[in-house]
Amino acid sequence: MFRPRLALVPGEPAGVGPELCARILAGAHPAELVVYGDAGALRESAAKLGIALPAFPAVEFPNAIAATPGQPDPRNAAAVIAALEAAARDCLDGRIDGLVTGPVHKANINAAGIAYTGTTELLAKQARRDVVMMLARPGLRVALATTHLPLRAVPDAISQASLETTLRVLHASLRTDFGIASPVIAVLGLNPHAGEDGVLGREEIETIHPMLAKLRNEGFDLRGPLPADTAFLPDKLPGFDAVLAMYHDQGLPVLKSTGIEHAVNITLGLPYPRVAVDHGTALDIAGKGIADPSSLFAAIAECARMAAHRKSAS
Amino acid sequence: MFRPRLALVPGEPAGVGPELCARILAGAHPAELVVYGDAGALRESAAKLGIALPAFPAVEFPNAIAATPGQPDPRNAAAVIAALEAAARDCLDGRIDGLVTGPVHKANINAAGIAYTGTTELLAKQARRDVVMMLARPGLRVALATTHLPLRAVPDAISQASLETTLRVLHASLRTDFGIASPVIAVLGLNPHAGEDGVLGREEIETIHPMLAKLRNEGFDLRGPLPADTAFLPDKLPGFDAVLAMYHDQGLPVLKSTGIEHAVNITLGLPYPRVAVDHGTALDIAGKGIADPSSLFAAIAECARMAAHRKSAS
Repeated sequence: MFRPRLALVPGEPAGVGPELCARILAGAHPAELVVYGDAGALRESAAKLGIALPAFPAVEFPNAIAATPGQPDPRNAAAVIAALEAAARDCLDGRIDGLVTGPVHKANINAAGIAYTGTTELLAKQARRDVVMMLARPGLRVALATTHLPLRAVPDAISQASLETTLRVLHASLRTDFGIASPVIAVLGLNPHAGEDGVLGREEIETIHPMLAKLRNEGFDLRGPLPADTAFLPDKLPGFDAVLAMYHDQGLPVLKSTGIEHAVNITLGLPYPRVAVDHGTALDIAGKGIADPSSLFAAIAECARMAAHRKSAS
Repeated sequence: MFRPRLALVPGEPAGVGPELCARILAGAHPAELVVYGDAGALRESAAKLGIALPAFPAVEFPNAIAATPGQPDPRNAAAVIAALEAAARDCLDGRIDGLVTGPVHKANINAAGIAYTGTTELLAKQARRDVVMMLARPGLRVALATTHLPLRAVPDAISQASLETTLRVLHASLRTDFGIASPVIAVLGLNPHAGEDGVLGREEIETIHPMLAKLRNEGFDLRGPLPADTAFLPDKLPGFDAVLAMYHDQGLPVLKSTGIEHAVNITLGLPYPRVAVDHGTALDIAGKGIADPSSLFAAIAECARMAAHRKSAS
């Protein structure tokens, strides 16, 4: 059986990333993991928590100064970004089959004077690809047509062109990364009740419907635009391979409130699979040994499955 | 024990309302129910489905023509509206303790040339009150700062003044209608991540935070503004008596996807309790006897509880 080789980037050294990586490395996991980060710091973090760490391969990006749990230091930001970029580069070059990332502290990186809006954006720029953010947990995948925008900016950010790109990336990824030959995608409306035939907004009529019609002509199996408040009913979800939400707070509350422990954040559209944990640095509990590695484990398992699907498709 | 006297309005005669009312009247229910509608048509509908209907009090609003299940007729619209208005009037006059309404068909009423945007709005206008729409199911109450607006119109519809009114109505109702002495209200942000300190929108800083501060000074227990994607996590909900969502699709997907069978639609701020079913006329299954009365039963039970709380508070 194919056992993929995945890059594991712990992320912010003052957060829970290192201890979560230590817990994963100490147990069984469905991939060969190569750590991109400060392996010595990871060993120290494990020792403090009584975790017996086996030998593991690492590409070294040493912290500039020793990390204090809960207190991110901008001097360590450059190593975090360098580790991410190097791991992604090795994925692009085919030396690694996929990328799994722990939580990064955006404000700390910006405090170091490094322009950074998010790892997804960083990876998209490096690979020069259009990407789509998708959150997933067992039984539900939610892709987003827009991500981190003020609500006020959402309607104008969704055009026929942007929607086409998003749907093409999502559709291709469901085939390639998830091995679904004929994916069914539920597309939500932008407005409540999906606009109620234009009474509650015109975007469904002017933007969404025409693009769905165009892609259906190419054979895409697209449902909708559906009202968001009833699209997630438990008897409907098994019929969808993914739900495309128009914006962040339309799609993610349901996903997170029904299984956040196993939720992961997937970047679709890169030349390699990339999966991140669906939680932050959790500075308040960093170093205490109580952080739950479920999401990181789920991220590794999902990335390994995606890598295997790519392998069998190629 | 106080057994409240509630008005029961079946709503659209061609929808599932009449058969649901028949099922409820035929079984045990926690209130004395007075039907405002066409009692003969209700008896006929029950007979066709083999439901043995006991005697029940009714205030008669006969259909203009016999209703055909699944085919709303604009000629019957006036009676639906007249029944709603009369039932509400009797609530205002204190002859009835609360109002429970079945599904109404908005387009059919408009087709009859009657200006109608929704029953909530009709009742608010008649009573001259500011009202708040709240959806509830066991374990979760979600109130809405805006209801049926195009997404594009939402940010400008939320001002400090509108938010103050909404929070005052919600807070007072949780005390009076639900018997919660010191309600805890979780207020969601408008933007993703509740604006992330202004990076993803300024409305939290300029509108929501100041109003929460003002009302906290009066003793309101308000949490937030909270990010919508994590506010509904199962370990957080027990700490909130209600969640105030800023708009429809931010609050309702979670509520409906986790228990729609027992979800009800409550109008807060009227001088009497009003609860509606959380589903439409279901024209596709009307008259077939397969419609599920769970939501109507839950609406009656909730309205009865609210009436009892008002009674004990007065």
